[in-house]
Amino acid sequence: MKITIIGAGNVGYQLTKGLTLAGYKIYQVFSRTEERLKDVFPALTKQATTNLQAIKSDADLYIIAVHDDAIQSVAEELVVHHGIVTHTSGATGKAILKAHKNYGIFYPLQTFTRSKPVDFAQIPLCIDGNNKQVIQKLTNIAKQLSQKIYYLDDAQRELIHVTAVIVNNFTNHLFDIAYTILQDNQLDFSILQPLILETAQKVQTKLPSQAQTGPAKRKDKKTLDKHLRLLENYPNYQLLYKLLSKSIME
Amino acid sequence: MKITIIGAGNVGYQLTKGLTLAGYKIYQVFSRTEERLKDVFPALTKQATTNLQAIKSDADLYIIAVHDDAIQSVAEELVVHHGIVTHTSGATGKAILKAHKNYGIFYPLQTFTRSKPVDFAQIPLCIDGNNKQVIQKLTNIAKQLSQKIYYLDDAQRELIHVTAVIVNNFTNHLFDIAYTILQDNQLDFSILQPLILETAQKVQTKLPSQAQTGPAKRKDKKTLDKHLRLLENYPNYQLLYKLLSKSIME
Repeated sequence: MKITIIGAGNVGYQLTKGLTLAGYKIYQVFSRTEERLKDVFPALTKQATTNLQAIKSDADLYIIAVHDDAIQSVAEELVVHHGIVTHTSGATGKAILKAHKNYGIFYPLQTFTRSKPVDFAQIPLCIDGNNKQVIQKLTNIAKQLSQKIYYLDDAQRELIHVTAVIVNNFTNHLFDIAYTILQDNQLDFSILQPLILETAQKVQTKLPSQAQTGPAKRKDKKTLDKHLRLLENYPNYQLLYKLLSKSIME
Repeated sequence: MKITIIGAGNVGYQLTKGLTLAGYKIYQVFSRTEERLKDVFPALTKQATTNLQAIKSDADLYIIAVHDDAIQSVAEELVVHHGIVTHTSGATGKAILKAHKNYGIFYPLQTFTRSKPVDFAQIPLCIDGNNKQVIQKLTNIAKQLSQKIYYLDDAQRELIHVTAVIVNNFTNHLFDIAYTILQDNQLDFSILQPLILETAQKVQTKLPSQAQTGPAKRKDKKTLDKHLRLLENYPNYQLLYKLLSKSIME
């Protein structure tokens, strides 16, 4: 099984690591910049290239893990003999790869960082393909990485992606808002860290609606008004506070 | 050391459990309703009462863990000889207890549920008092429960409380929004659970601003527009999506 990874960003890096740990040999790996390749894949120097034309056509699986905007041009440049061409984007349809005979999706639903090791066993892998053989082959590979395999079409994957943005990007932004307010008042963000962790842990076993607490949930107008006054110097955060509280109350 | 707990809600329950495990004997415990007391404190039946007048005046510490609106009336009804009267509210000033000679704050910063055991060692305890002796005594007790002790005045505690609402209540509401969208489309919320956990874990060691990713951060207008279209059936969520994305971009 020859697997080629296109892209040396966080997803490309973690997939390369995860597939290697799962026993697969990475056939080739591509990055636009040499520094990135050397920095990220020192063990794969021989297989590494910064030239898309140097990607060989006889791999069994190509995983395109580049920015959404670049997927199409990369896919069109690839010359592929029999292999499956996939991308890892939650927001991009699979038809963008349709120039190839066998194509599909290999979308790990997680937020990746270079520096933080990930346990692929706990990461949902979303799979799709343009025919049954593709789906079967991708399933076989995915199973070596994770027990959590989901078969999602484009429309479903888009919905998963928008909710992933909500629970990850927006949640993290709320953390950043809290950080900013505390920092401006010489208070330490670390006081909130256990609460943040517990909030996430609760919805591992409970429904979010059952875990909801707080002044908006209680319709505690006195506290809500006090909080809005406290946020007077942050009109942007004040508006978000108002709308999120209103949404909880509805 | 005689500790009396007023209130059998989640905070009163978990504090009673935590203090007992830390080696303290609970002197008395009060709840408005008998069912609650029997249900929650079966081991403390002898010390339990539903009558505030039956609370003895010779305890060393009273912890009032009732709804914010009820703190004042409960505090005024208490007859206290020498003990310290505290409450556990993040949003309420300590002066509400000033009818007593010794008073202060014993505010554990965590989201409590009856059914979920908590590790008090990891829970920040916010302490304040109307004199040095009170602060010293509360510190001694707090140290038996947690290593994370914070000395915060009213203004600081209010700020901590508003940021706690942001990172807990609002974050959980975002989880609920995601749940609703997935549920409406026959998709399983469990696919998001690992992402939710990792999002919280990241900010245990990284700054939220360093952990920020996503279409708004990248100013990826194409994806943002697509997501807004996907949320067309949810005008309320669409507005929140728009404002949170705008706030990230600023």
